[in-house]
Amino acid sequence: MLLHGNAVVGQSGGPTAAINATLSGVIKGAFKAKEEGIINTLYGMRNGIEGFLKENLVDLFETFKNKDGLSTLEATPAAALGSCRRKLKSHEEDSETYARILDILKKYDIRYFFYIGGNDSMDTVLKLSRYAASHDYELRVVGVPKTIDNDLMATDHTPGFGSAAKFVATTVKEIIRDINVYTMDAVTIVEIMGRDAGWLTASASLASLGDVGPDLIYLPERVFDEERFVNDVKERLSHHPAILVAVSEGVRFANGEYVGAGTQSGAVDVFGHKYLAGTGKVLESIVKNRIGCKVRAVELSLTQRCASHMASLTDINESVKVGMGAVKAAVDGKTGVMMTIERVWGGEYETTVGCADIAGIANAIKTVPAEYINAEGNGITDEGIEYLKPLIMGELTLEYENGLPKHIVI
Amino acid sequence: MLLHGNAVVGQSGGPTAAINATLSGVIKGAFKAKEEGIINTLYGMRNGIEGFLKENLVDLFETFKNKDGLSTLEATPAAALGSCRRKLKSHEEDSETYARILDILKKYDIRYFFYIGGNDSMDTVLKLSRYAASHDYELRVVGVPKTIDNDLMATDHTPGFGSAAKFVATTVKEIIRDINVYTMDAVTIVEIMGRDAGWLTASASLASLGDVGPDLIYLPERVFDEERFVNDVKERLSHHPAILVAVSEGVRFANGEYVGAGTQSGAVDVFGHKYLAGTGKVLESIVKNRIGCKVRAVELSLTQRCASHMASLTDINESVKVGMGAVKAAVDGKTGVMMTIERVWGGEYETTVGCADIAGIANAIKTVPAEYINAEGNGITDEGIEYLKPLIMGELTLEYENGLPKHIVI
Repeated sequence: MLLHGNAVVGQSGGPTAAINATLSGVIKGAFKAKEEGIINTLYGMRNGIEGFLKENLVDLFETFKNKDGLSTLEATPAAALGSCRRKLKSHEEDSETYARILDILKKYDIRYFFYIGGNDSMDTVLKLSRYAASHDYELRVVGVPKTIDNDLMATDHTPGFGSAAKFVATTVKEIIRDINVYTMDAVTIVEIMGRDAGWLTASASLASLGDVGPDLIYLPERVFDEERFVNDVKERLSHHPAILVAVSEGVRFANGEYVGAGTQSGAVDVFGHKYLAGTGKVLESIVKNRIGCKVRAVELSLTQRCASHMASLTDINESVKVGMGAVKAAVDGKTGVMMTIERVWGGEYETTVGCADIAGIANAIKTVPAEYINAEGNGITDEGIEYLKPLIMGELTLEYENGLPKHIVI
Repeated sequence: MLLHGNAVVGQSGGPTAAINATLSGVIKGAFKAKEEGIINTLYGMRNGIEGFLKENLVDLFETFKNKDGLSTLEATPAAALGSCRRKLKSHEEDSETYARILDILKKYDIRYFFYIGGNDSMDTVLKLSRYAASHDYELRVVGVPKTIDNDLMATDHTPGFGSAAKFVATTVKEIIRDINVYTMDAVTIVEIMGRDAGWLTASASLASLGDVGPDLIYLPERVFDEERFVNDVKERLSHHPAILVAVSEGVRFANGEYVGAGTQSGAVDVFGHKYLAGTGKVLESIVKNRIGCKVRAVELSLTQRCASHMASLTDINESVKVGMGAVKAAVDGKTGVMMTIERVWGGEYETTVGCADIAGIANAIKTVPAEYINAEGNGITDEGIEYLKPLIMGELTLEYENGLPKHIVI
């Protein structure tokens, strides 16, 4: 049944290089729905649900009239609409906020609600769709995934992951070139984002295709054992002098403690997640104290999630497709769903866009499966590389201005 | 007077994204000299002068016959021949090493010696040219500069700097996108390489062209004052919430101590330079303790010196030109010189290749001039940006293999 009205889109959670490509996809999809007389106006909420509650809305059909600027938007990292880290409480706990949301939806005649985000954002989508349904307001709420962590259930991979993976693999490859110029024993530890899932760290293994890759890779999916680590490094150093170790920020000791916790203040982020930043430094200390050779920790930090200049064309194209698909799914009557990417296995890499019920997706984490990790727990199998490789293929043709990639500010 | 014989080329010091472009230029220049019947064979020494002393030589005419692979070499970061950190002692102190060098030169009939490196490498060139001259062995020794630090005298800028500057400015611009998605006060400190000269940190200012740049930039050319820093940050936070600070690793307090020394072990590198890595972390602590808002230090670390995927075409082209120019200068009779880039000021950006006597260049440092730094000592002037901007213009057309930039291994 056709539902006429307006639409709103927001971005939430940590930045990626592809979150604006998905926004572009939603805008493209909404333009199409406008031509079909279904959606009149597409609003963008600034800073996610926080901005929505303040009616901080921008008319995106106006901003991108004639679709000018959409390709620049697709090459602009981080959330162009701004983001927030706010996770809605249950409506039993905070009925006021939900009532406020409903008021605004009615005021702007919003019938379509698109929320681009990670795990915590899908939880918002789920709550909102249930609330609207139980309050007799016809609203179609569709979540559009994005996260460099690739840790969402139900989708083969997440938009944003491929670009981060391409930057990580490229940078690891370049660092391997860098550290190999000297002949003395040296260990370089590259700390990569990933609190509970090691997907992004695993992508460092892609540097090995047709070249030399990391010597050792440690993921949060395996217990981190200091003795084994020291032995692994010593063994590699017996073969060649410059060792590269890729490690997830979220690796833990057998007692469940984060390896990086030792150097941290114990501070937590706004979701109560323990803040980690010191894993590489802890490994650096271990090598310094127990092996004694030259050692340096490199933390890729923010660069890995916003490096649009090294975006994967596959990722950007899929991110746009998923955004367009979200509008189509909503127009077709879907609500309370998250868009997914399904891979057609066998033959050339090919994907289709689907969607899945969001209950069971939100708050669950997809980790790297056992068959992608080698028996020693310090490397990625060929099967894992097979999964990862297509996601980083292709490059965007970037616009440059003053020698730098051009971005758009909404 | 034409000098017939063989040539050798080596690379030394820290990696850059353009050091292989210069090597490619030397190879191209030597091929030309071969056609002219002057140079018979071009050897590459592995790991700089250390490899030379072990006669660890590779025939580069053979490796790159028909000039295949030179464009891939130009896009490969770090020293393809390997590097070393060895600085020759004076021949009074270490006559044995010099005698050994002379023996090898004679054994291989080497009459041309090209050494691509930074400040410390030019010192080697100077000593070697003097030694050969005083021992009646006709040898033409030419230094070819490279350093991301841009701190060599006599040249408008150094090969390798423009590419590092382009990566730094791009990354800073992307990080600015990233940190601007939230609305709360937050300070992000980006620590950039540069022990004594702030050129690379200054290049962060290029992000501001047609966009928003860093809020504050601190260079080693100015004393770092904690009170002024805290006031600067507070003042910026009163205007907008997400502040980006770019800081050189080498900034010092009024008493001459490195800001980063507080978190360091006091270890020194093989040249006796104090090892620095904690400047960003110290500034992070200052903000945390004295302002109390969210703060994060990002250290660009190795990535900034090996990011060939973001190389400046201007830099790569000039690096090749300087390498070719070195061979021509030597064939024309020059020795004990360093190749230079001279800028033709006024009108379009244009440069010519020259050379300068190496005495007076080696062991001297070119710092950022006063007129490029603003009066407050926390930013770059328009004049500084005017100097920097042309150096990052243009992009290489990269070859990709398995989704990653292709490199060559010699």
